Amino acid sequence: MLLWNRAAVVGVPGVGKTSLCKAISKELGYHYINFGELMLKIAIERDLAHTLEDMLQLNTELQYRIWKSAALSIQNAENVLIDLHGVDITREGYLISLPFEIIPPEIIIIIETSYDEIFQRRTRDRGKKRVLEDYKTVKEHLSLLKYSMVSISTILGSNLVVLKNDELQTCLEHLKGVLQR
Amino acid sequence: MLLWNRAAVVGVPGVGKTSLCKAISKELGYHYINFGELMLKIAIERDLAHTLEDMLQLNTELQYRIWKSAALSIQNAENVLIDLHGVDITREGYLISLPFEIIPPEIIIIIETSYDEIFQRRTRDRGKKRVLEDYKTVKEHLSLLKYSMVSISTILGSNLVVLKNDELQTCLEHLKGVLQR
Amino acid sequence: MLLWNRAAVVGVPGVGKTSLCKAISKELGYHYINFGELMLKIAIERDLAHTLEDMLQLNTELQYRIWKSAALSIQNAENVLIDLHGVDITREGYLISLPFEIIPPEIIIIIETSYDEIFQRRTRDRGKKRVLEDYKTVKEHLSLLKYSMVSISTILGSNLVVLKNDELQTCLEHLKGVLQR
Repeated sequence: MLLWNRAAVVGVPGVGKTSLCKAISKELGYHYINFGELMLKIAIERDLAHTLEDMLQLNTELQYRIWKSAALSIQNAENVLIDLHGVDITREGYLISLPFEIIPPEIIIIIETSYDEIFQRRTRDRGKKRVLEDYKTVKEHLSLLKYSMVSISTILGSNLVVLKNDELQTCLEHLKGVLQR
Repeated sequence: MLLWNRAAVVGVPGVGKTSLCKAISKELGYHYINFGELMLKIAIERDLAHTLEDMLQLNTELQYRIWKSAALSIQNAENVLIDLHGVDITREGYLISLPFEIIPPEIIIIIETSYDEIFQRRTRDRGKKRVLEDYKTVKEHLSLLKYSMVSISTILGSNLVVLKNDELQTCLEHLKGVLQR
Repeated sequence: MLLWNRAAVVGVPGVGKTSLCKAISKELGYHYINFGELMLKIAIERDLAHTLEDMLQLNTELQYRIWKSAALSIQNAENVLIDLHGVDITREGYLISLPFEIIPPEIIIIIETSYDEIFQRRTRDRGKKRVLEDYKTVKEHLSLLKYSMVSISTILGSNLVVLKNDELQTCLEHLKGVLQR
């Protein structure tokens, strides 16, 4: 039995979130939604951008509208697992990017791992042009993600889970325990 | 003079919260309310559970209703000191369990102590069937408690105090300074 | 071009916030507002206090009214850089002192530095009668400031920036990058 109608899985880039989410959604029957890809799809439809890099170069107001449209487009979706960063580093500082007022998740699952793991994944994924942040920045990003997700959980009364993704299979088992009974 | 109409004292299990709260309430004249016991009383009245363990086995929806009823039942109480966890570890992750929207505290007092103290108290209290969490889990629980209490304090504009309970008498003196003038 | 209509710069006493804010406001053309001084001005006008020390001795209710009046008095100000603590240590514990409901900032900039720097600045500034807190208290104050500013940023959807002020010129350059394009 699927436990949640809307679950958000958040984590900094390189934490292995997407592999986890895709595998578990397929296995359990959740609808997998990659929020960044959904935003890009909308940006492309509106002829605002062709690639992720284009989109991230748009002005703040335009990005905000795309973000809001993406959230509104899945407002009525059921049994969804939403894969998103939660907090983004933008040109203008940190920005909480989980649209909790539009699509309040019943549970927020934070995926964490060590800096070394994150660094290795980001180096491998150079094709995705991932920014290589230094240790202090990654640590701060991880902390701010946690603080803000606790804030959202406090505001919404959502459940909150913190999972370490040091080893994919183990983390998948934990995630399974969280998502179904 | 009692400084607060409604004070919440929060902490993870084994931090020595209850001894502190009972002693100080008696000395200063606050009405002591143990929120967990209040919930159990309501569960028993409704014939939903006979023991704390029974109650914690109830489904989420039922536990939520008991929790809400407990909060509503003390909404008009004055000069109360409410003893509760603040954040609970449930089968479905962390859950903020301070009903701040129903009984907004004017002050939130977080009681902390070292892992060793917590572990020793929990081991002694096996009669209470306290779960023995490992060091990392306790540390995470303590952190999330702090983050969420700061969130609540931000939302409500409540005062916030963090007290170390390394030694009962010293902590009692500090608590006294916080609760009366 | 000034990027923000209302920016809040927060930090614990001794972090070098005021020097930074004055210098950058002058250079970029922001209206500099020192929230503590604004509160004092209002307290003096109302004949409630003559000095900062007087004001901090007033009862909580009076201080709250001054705080609220100060916030209301700048509600319509534009292109402002507001210099304030964010979280204050009062006789009655920590209190979030950024009036985010009255003057919601578009961006919150947290200024941090090492304990040694803070301690040295506070020692030099004895004229200002700054309280010398110990290492643990300063560390806790810094943490709670961060948690609460993330909460506010979550509630408002504000941007958030954390800057280290280890060296004034470097920090000024970073601040410049954050405040204009």
